[in-house]
Amino acid sequence: MKLYHEVRGCSLAVDIVARELGIPLDLQWVNMRTKTLADGTDYFSVSSKGTVPTLELPDGQYLSEGTVIMQYLADEEGSGRLLPRPGSLARLRVLEWMSFIAADLHKGGFMPLFKPATPPEYRRIATDYVKAKLAWLDSRLRDGPYLTGDDFTIADAHCYTIAMWAGVHHIDTDAWPHLEAYLERVGSRPSVKAAEQAAREQGERDRLTSNALVG
Amino acid sequence: MKLYHEVRGCSLAVDIVARELGIPLDLQWVNMRTKTLADGTDYFSVSSKGTVPTLELPDGQYLSEGTVIMQYLADEEGSGRLLPRPGSLARLRVLEWMSFIAADLHKGGFMPLFKPATPPEYRRIATDYVKAKLAWLDSRLRDGPYLTGDDFTIADAHCYTIAMWAGVHHIDTDAWPHLEAYLERVGSRPSVKAAEQAAREQGERDRLTSNALVG
Repeated sequence: MKLYHEVRGCSLAVDIVARELGIPLDLQWVNMRTKTLADGTDYFSVSSKGTVPTLELPDGQYLSEGTVIMQYLADEEGSGRLLPRPGSLARLRVLEWMSFIAADLHKGGFMPLFKPATPPEYRRIATDYVKAKLAWLDSRLRDGPYLTGDDFTIADAHCYTIAMWAGVHHIDTDAWPHLEAYLERVGSRPSVKAAEQAAREQGERDRLTSNALVG
Repeated sequence: MKLYHEVRGCSLAVDIVARELGIPLDLQWVNMRTKTLADGTDYFSVSSKGTVPTLELPDGQYLSEGTVIMQYLADEEGSGRLLPRPGSLARLRVLEWMSFIAADLHKGGFMPLFKPATPPEYRRIATDYVKAKLAWLDSRLRDGPYLTGDDFTIADAHCYTIAMWAGVHHIDTDAWPHLEAYLERVGSRPSVKAAEQAAREQGERDRLTSNALVG
């Protein structure tokens, strides 16, 4: 299956999940500044929203929204390892985290910080919002190594990907030791290292072809 | 089951879904300004995030995140009417919409407009963002009466609830005839009218007790 991916995008979480599950994906890098693929194809022909990630399903249909793609991949693999089976409260607990991370932390929190046009006054508001969410996240990480307890799930791949943007925006995480330990714990997984390495290598290729992507 | 609800909040979508499914909910109104319940109880004792909606499950546990609560209720009812069964592409299509509405339209788009401290410069950026999302939504509503085709789903309850905030923020929907027809179509459903009426009546009670809620 093809995953439409971006060097610094939240699509990293999908790549991590696929590697954890052992599902091979064909990474298609999208230039989000020009909304084109490497061969010049208009990305809007893949995603009418123009967003990453998009997954091309085996029947050729496209599936959008990272939270949904990660659920799909985990259910396809079928062991319930990264996402408990439908009908369980344990699954709802993972989905609660997925929703919080996508809506509050990513779109409500970090997105305004990535927009060059965001004025300093709102940049401060968004930074405070992110800090409040990260502080709450830290308080929830006191009890277990992962978000829902002892097991790494798709929510951890997602949370790691978004929370790591604190560094990009110079938000110091020193005040949140549980969060820092968590990011180190997740970041040391081979799946995460491999997915980050793939993105770094593509970023390097982009720089060499003077085709730098925007965040 | 108790639903922790807010007069002008996105929790309206959950009330609509429960009424569609015939699941009776005990509405508990939250004053989001003071983060207290009607009897003075600290709402943080229910929701450590301090957000609505929260659903109290039959076993006394709390479930947060509107998108997840709506899935839970639809699956509990069990007919698959408002949300196709797990393992189907049709379900993923509904969930795609749920993610887009919660993350992009609500948190990325409307949330900054509800914050009194948002400066005019960013208010314009957020308004343009909302308009772009609503224009795309309009283009997707050309083909069917509802978001995923012929059947009303939890995504429509959610989409209606959030898209109606365009009126609150003086965003004219004239340019999007499919969206306008859709909002009228969904708004005419008895479940929607009843949920809106319940919120209006609570708003009236709040005003009478000089306890007006903030948006």
